[in-house]
This record gives sequence, structure tokens and C-alpha cells, in this order.
Amino acid sequence: MERRAKTTHPVLEIIARRWSPRAFAPDLPSKDELASIFEAARWAPSCFNGQPWRFIVTTKDDAGSFQKALSCLREQNIIWAQNAPVLAFLVAGENFEHNGKPNPWSDLDCGLAMGQLILQAESMGWSAHVMAGFHPDKVREAFKVPEGFDLLAAFVIGKAGDPETLPEDLKERETASRERKPLSGTVFSGNWGRSMF
Amino acid sequence: MERRAKTTHPVLEIIARRWSPRAFAPDLPSKDELASIFEAARWAPSCFNGQPWRFIVTTKDDAGSFQKALSCLREQNIIWAQNAPVLAFLVAGENFEHNGKPNPWSDLDCGLAMGQLILQAESMGWSAHVMAGFHPDKVREAFKVPEGFDLLAAFVIGKAGDPETLPEDLKERETASRERKPLSGTVFSGNWGRSMF
Repeated sequence: MERRAKTTHPVLEIIARRWSPRAFAPDLPSKDELASIFEAARWAPSCFNGQPWRFIVTTKDDAGSFQKALSCLREQNIIWAQNAPVLAFLVAGENFEHNGKPNPWSDLDCGLAMGQLILQAESMGWSAHVMAGFHPDKVREAFKVPEGFDLLAAFVIGKAGDPETLPEDLKERETASRERKPLSGTVFSGNWGRSMF
Repeated sequence: MERRAKTTHPVLEIIARRWSPRAFAPDLPSKDELASIFEAARWAPSCFNGQPWRFIVTTKDDAGSFQKALSCLREQNIIWAQNAPVLAFLVAGENFEHNGKPNPWSDLDCGLAMGQLILQAESMGWSAHVMAGFHPDKVREAFKVPEGFDLLAAFVIGKAGDPETLPEDLKERETASRERKPLSGTVFSGNWGRSMF
């Protein structure tokens, strides 16, 4: 299915066509493909090169781990995420390793890494869908995440599938056009609120 | 100058060759180029499609605004950032617009947008360098940033220039090889600390 963004200015094809599916084909990425996807995250920039991102990854061919991960999602996400072949969590280190002090840029840096991961996946024909709807405490307990690390997001990786496999309300969202604020509302020049473009 | 990452697994060329220069050529991106760079950020995914990112952008051809922005950086960044043609700030909305509640994923989402911006810039021959070393209160005052928005990072955009233009200590960093933790230390499978790759 084609849900290319209606961009106002030209952007990379992988950015224009990237979206977050809820319907997935059964295809499972190979270990080499997954390695490239996480390698892309690895090379993101970060404050003091602290690399605060950690990933917990489960794949459907390890049914025990996958089910454990699935049970940490909120109900409304389990409905569709159970059909993805890869279910993972993004974890943020709370402190800098070089001095033990709190790292206020950890979430931002995790976002930079995740952004590279998503586009790498997209370039290889895989889609990633990031979710906020999960239970951090369940993940911490189920996967033995130590203190000092914060559960930031869940995400799936898979190949976009047939929207007809989704419940009616999700099917509608799956095929709706993609919307964003205009740049005039988010990019300012000189002073706050003064549109740059 | 070539500082391609020594990747363990193949990744997109724009990811492998991306880095954060401190030496810049004088070239200024056109308005169309800048529009594409920010359009890339626009299409990032975000929690509830909240799009919490805002950007304040100054360019060297508006010397007043650029100097105002420059004076908000920490001294060690002013030294080199003054040579970049574009100096900007990334700002995070603290609350969801649809219900006014705090958005715990705002920094993550700003990172996703910034990640797309950086790779779009890279694909067009421009480099972005994100900085934590700036004074948020000065930016808020200088650019009239309202309550409810958090100053998250500063960044420059420019074409990587001649490292010889930098002071000795920065010149060394500019040409050092790029290092990252191995994937075995950041990507876990099944349980925390169990390497996936």
C-alpha cells in the first residue's frame, strides 16, 4: 500500500514514504537484516558520544520472549502488534557513563538513534512503528532492566501488510491520508512565531 | 574530508558518512534547501501525531539574528559555531495539544524529527551538528520562547570545511576516527545484557 507523504518541499524518498503500519505481513527479517537496522542506530550522534540508547529485541521465532514482550503492551496495541515479526523496546540510560551525572539529553539522543533505525529499516523494505502504549514496570520486571535505565518506547518492525486484516476502526486509520502541521507553524526565524518559510 | 564510519554491518551511505563537523566552509544553503531540510523533520512520527518539535533558525545573511543566537551558546561552542552559516535551536512542547497533559515522549519525538533533518541535510551535502552547550534561559529571552516549551538543543548546519581553520585541540577531534560501542553492549535479546548479535 502506498501512503507517500504529500510533501511541500522535496525530501528523501525513504522519508516521504515512511509510515507506521499496524497491519503486517508474516515475513521475518533475517539476522543480518536486523543487524544492519540496529547498526544504523549505533552511528547516531549523542551528547559527549554517550550513546545512551539500549534495545531489547524479541522475534517471533523465539515465541517465549515475543509473548513476554507482547504481554507488556497496552491492550489496544496488543491487538495489532501481535502480528508483527519483531517486537522491541527502546531504553534510555539516565546518567552519563563518563561522570555518573544525570543526562538531560538522553531521550533526545535515543530519538536520534531511533530515527536512523527507522530510516535504515525503511530503505530495506521494512517498517518500524514506535509505540508509547506499554507498561514500563512490566518490561523492567520481565526483562530484568536495571536501575538507571528508563523504558522509553516500544516498537515493532515488519513488512506492511493487508489493512483488511485489521479491526474496522484500525483499518480506517491505516488507510487515512497522512497529516502534518505546516512548516509555518513549527519553524521560526528571528523570533518565536515568525514563520521562516 | 572523509570520516566514514567503520561499520560492522552495512548501512545507508548517508548514515555511514554522517558526522558532526566543527570546521565549516562559508557556503550558505539556499532557502529551498533549508525548506527541504526542515520538511524532512516535519514528517517524523510522533506520539498521537503531536509533532512537539519547534525550530528557531538564524542564518548568517541576517547578521542580527545570527549574533543573537550565537551569544546564547557556551563559550567553547561559540569558538567554532560562529563559522557555520546556519545556527538554530530545537524546542520541545511540554504538553500534548489535544488534551493539555504533559507529554513524556516529547524529547524522544524531537529526536526522531532531528534525526530525519540530519539525514536529509547529509543527503544534500550539508552537515548538521547538534549541541547541548548553550544557555536555555538566554534563548528563551532573546527569541521570546513562551512557557510550555523547553529549549532542548542548539545545532548548526553547514558544509564541512578545512580542519586547519580550527584551534589545535579541536583540530585533533575533527580528524580522529569515529568510535561507537559494539552492538553487543547495546542490543539485547530475551533478557537485559544478553547480546543479540
